[in-house]
Amino acid sequence: MIKKYTKTANYSYTIGFFPTFELLKYQKEQFKQLYVSNNAIDSDGYLKLKNMLSFQQIVVSDKIFSKLDIKENAHVLAVFNKYQTILNTNADHLVLVNPSDQGNLGNAMRTLLAFGYHDLAIIEPATDHFNPKTVRASMGAIFHINIECFTSFADYLAKYPRPYYPFVLSESTPLSKIEFASHCALVFGNEATGLPPAIYNRNNVRIEQSDEVDSLNLTTSIAIGLYELKKQKGLN
Amino acid sequence: MIKKYTKTANYSYTIGFFPTFELLKYQKEQFKQLYVSNNAIDSDGYLKLKNMLSFQQIVVSDKIFSKLDIKENAHVLAVFNKYQTILNTNADHLVLVNPSDQGNLGNAMRTLLAFGYHDLAIIEPATDHFNPKTVRASMGAIFHINIECFTSFADYLAKYPRPYYPFVLSESTPLSKIEFASHCALVFGNEATGLPPAIYNRNNVRIEQSDEVDSLNLTTSIAIGLYELKKQKGLN
Repeated sequence: MIKKYTKTANYSYTIGFFPTFELLKYQKEQFKQLYVSNNAIDSDGYLKLKNMLSFQQIVVSDKIFSKLDIKENAHVLAVFNKYQTILNTNADHLVLVNPSDQGNLGNAMRTLLAFGYHDLAIIEPATDHFNPKTVRASMGAIFHINIECFTSFADYLAKYPRPYYPFVLSESTPLSKIEFASHCALVFGNEATGLPPAIYNRNNVRIEQSDEVDSLNLTTSIAIGLYELKKQKGLN
Repeated sequence: MIKKYTKTANYSYTIGFFPTFELLKYQKEQFKQLYVSNNAIDSDGYLKLKNMLSFQQIVVSDKIFSKLDIKENAHVLAVFNKYQTILNTNADHLVLVNPSDQGNLGNAMRTLLAFGYHDLAIIEPATDHFNPKTVRASMGAIFHINIECFTSFADYLAKYPRPYYPFVLSESTPLSKIEFASHCALVFGNEATGLPPAIYNRNNVRIEQSDEVDSLNLTTSIAIGLYELKKQKGLN
């Protein structure tokens, strides 16, 4: 039986049916083992999974859910090997600099995919993108996007040189006035501290907002940036 | 000492410094009592609050935080009377039909305010907009917007007749092709079930998205709708 997840483990797991289907659809070669609770063995979802897997790949167990301290009312859990992917050079990228919240990171993946984009660069230090909480927040989107981690923004840019747009709160052009270059990168900073000024450039963008609130949250800002990018490129 | 929050109580409370400042700034007449933990009595935030309040309005207590089962690492809590507001007829409205999640509802308030809008209609059944979790998710935005609850969408429309745009997933015009009428309403359905077809009209709108994901989440969709509305009206 697997142990509780740690960042250094070479495996992670999906919790619940939806992300498990996404795993089997898009990264089946990484799949290792399915755990299912006794409550779920008659469910339609489980019957569907059973048809996709061999007998040896399935373990019926209630204990695993309490052992791993899973608070959600979940009945399946699929263990998978962590894996590496590289970004597509001929596509737009989302770059997250030092994201610290697993829910936000997972949500960003889901939003990226929702707008038809597939390439996410993460600049470290950052929260672990394979943490089960991130996987869950992504609703399984993690399995059909490319994710590449870098130790600095400069390293990212050296490997993928391109025009990039830092999203900031000041000294910048309103989003609606920006003309995005092709194969560009949208760059967002940490939830609390924003982007380091070293990343600022002449393409700084802001989403104009009322001064009555602190600021839009990170996932909302990412969604609006991607919406405008997609719209400009005529994909809407 | 106050009791744990219930929907039928005539009071609610803010948790943490930020929403407490917002309460005192925008709805001071509703404020009843501040509780502060011993840990926080030397903090800058508390000193600032102390200057805004009278001695009788402050109770130092650690017990209240455990008694109310507050899981966040919070050190202040401000009790306030629930109150009613009405919408501004001469403004655009956000209408949420049967929102069920406190976090989403609070986030929607924050996003509404971020784009400079102030009017939210809630169609019941709906999660309680004064629940402390909603107040917290709103980051205090709840205190500077107008919120009015209705038992049906028809009741809302009878009181505030106006063009309205139901956000749906099909049979609709892409958001980028919509021309919003002045003093309109953007209408969003429940997180899981969407809008009831009875609310559909010729102004149905969709945010075009990839078929690789289930759908954008509610708060993201609201943010994009409001962004586009604000942009069209030249406020960006």
